[in-house]
Amino acid sequence: VAPGGEFDLIAALSPFLSGAEDDVLVGTGDDAAVLALGDRSICLTVDVVVEDVHFRRSLSSLADVGWKAVAVNVSDVAAMAGRPSVAVVGLCRPASVASDEITELYQGMSEACQRWGLRLVGGDTVAADALALSVTVLGDLDGGSGVRRDGARAGDAVVVVGALGAAATALAQVAAGVEPDPALLAAHRRPRALVEAGRALADHGATALIDCSDGLGRDLGHVCRASGLRARVEAERLPVADGVHEAAAALSADAWRLVTGGGEDFALIAAVPAERADQAAAAAAAAEGVPAAVVGSFVVVADGDGPTVVLMRDGEERDLDADGFDHFATKGTS
Amino acid sequence: VAPGGEFDLIAALSPFLSGAEDDVLVGTGDDAAVLALGDRSICLTVDVVVEDVHFRRSLSSLADVGWKAVAVNVSDVAAMAGRPSVAVVGLCRPASVASDEITELYQGMSEACQRWGLRLVGGDTVAADALALSVTVLGDLDGGSGVRRDGARAGDAVVVVGALGAAATALAQVAAGVEPDPALLAAHRRPRALVEAGRALADHGATALIDCSDGLGRDLGHVCRASGLRARVEAERLPVADGVHEAAAALSADAWRLVTGGGEDFALIAAVPAERADQAAAAAAAAEGVPAAVVGSFVVVADGDGPTVVLMRDGEERDLDADGFDHFATKGTS
Repeated sequence: VAPGGEFDLIAALSPFLSGAEDDVLVGTGDDAAVLALGDRSICLTVDVVVEDVHFRRSLSSLADVGWKAVAVNVSDVAAMAGRPSVAVVGLCRPASVASDEITELYQGMSEACQRWGLRLVGGDTVAADALALSVTVLGDLDGGSGVRRDGARAGDAVVVVGALGAAATALAQVAAGVEPDPALLAAHRRPRALVEAGRALADHGATALIDCSDGLGRDLGHVCRASGLRARVEAERLPVADGVHEAAAALSADAWRLVTGGGEDFALIAAVPAERADQAAAAAAAAEGVPAAVVGSFVVVADGDGPTVVLMRDGEERDLDADGFDHFATKGTS
Repeated sequence: VAPGGEFDLIAALSPFLSGAEDDVLVGTGDDAAVLALGDRSICLTVDVVVEDVHFRRSLSSLADVGWKAVAVNVSDVAAMAGRPSVAVVGLCRPASVASDEITELYQGMSEACQRWGLRLVGGDTVAADALALSVTVLGDLDGGSGVRRDGARAGDAVVVVGALGAAATALAQVAAGVEPDPALLAAHRRPRALVEAGRALADHGATALIDCSDGLGRDLGHVCRASGLRARVEAERLPVADGVHEAAAALSADAWRLVTGGGEDFALIAAVPAERADQAAAAAAAAEGVPAAVVGSFVVVADGDGPTVVLMRDGEERDLDADGFDHFATKGTS
């Protein structure tokens, strides 16, 4: 709801935002809001992508940008275990953007809509100084209230579906002046939303679910804070995108920071009862053809500790929250 | 969907946009899309307001801007005869906008939500060079498919609910360097959405409905083109906001151009079977405490004529479409 790190602002805005009340089953603060409608329920999410904040035209075609604006919202629907149904777009168009460029943006949005079976049903295009797409996606929850962030229980396993680190590594290559690896850059340009994985995780008893848009540490941290737990994650179990370790070595960069803090992975992170976790991971992986793994577990918060994410790596424990993810954040949102 | 007047672009985008198909009861091209959900139905609409395009901070407080961003969307729901339920906002925030200013925007959105009984359930705030709010509102249609633009029939009366010309006249005063009349400026700063009027018009058999955001000529013109009809409107029957004629005279401006072409009225324009029109107008006026009138009728398109709006004024007929509404448009959208 507010720029990353500005917890005071989030607190200041909370009186104006709806929590769960009446037919609002899930209010602000989750991947998507959930609304009851008769015996049905829907989820609703909005994400904005802005030129030179979320994309650069030197790295992404406008069709890529349109795709991404839809995909990041579909990922939020996936993180509620919903099925996306329709999208609308509010488009800020600078005078320098030609009509055929607008058409290319819509082409990309349309490709993403076809990929995940939703329809683009409306939009508003206005003149503005910055190129920005605000996409809202509505998803169907089959009458349920979705899988929230706050349901993890001590003892639940942490399951990650989807490979981590690709987009961040490609952007690190760009920042270093190195030609980015096309396969890694593809994760930045055309992110994939794991709708079937979200549903498989829910079917296998997931108690909490979030998508990994701002990095594993930050997003798993949201689940920890919402659920009042700590998460212990073993670095060597994390599903890492092919080529990340090699590219990081070539850059003399810390691969684990790209893997746990880079953002734009759009993996799913779930809490699943331990006895069902292996099966849940396997089902989610099979549904999407992506890697998935049981990477750790949720534990109670001990005296003096906060709800946070502890990464175990090379025999040492590192607090991912304390690692300072703001330094690596490529997005202006939370 | 596209900047005003760019019909080529609208045509180019149409392959990417959903018409009515499957559970999409109304696709793009109306005030809102309509989606069937089990035995219920909802409408969904998005409007973007951008600084120095739709508002100026010299004329509107940020609370006014927040109010307006919600109200213009609620007006689209009213124009489907729906009831607004929830809103989400995508907010582009320049670095120069302080946290307490963001709070003020949310305060205004919250006031509008309270006014029309909807809940603000989510949002995304991102860094950007322009201050812009993209608000999406979802409305409940009680299982119906709403009142569209394309259902008017020859012989139906044209009913206008709400006073015309106030916002345009205030902006004309500003443009002329005259202190704007506060009552007129209020229509620009805090527009009112006529939700109860929309429902009353539907209850009284309205066959087509649209909200008047871009001026009577243009918006009634949308109904005419969608329905394949002409509309004949008598100028002296139009409900004109108090003070418009006086202010226009003081500016040596043409009051009728402000009334029929100024935009931002957020009145409702309906086609209603002639025998029910007086009662529909009275019911809608009573529901809102605003003026309403039967102002003309829809007629068949004769050979050589297009579907358009003809204004009868001082014994002469004027084609409002030919009058060049692009010249007066204050908005970059259609």
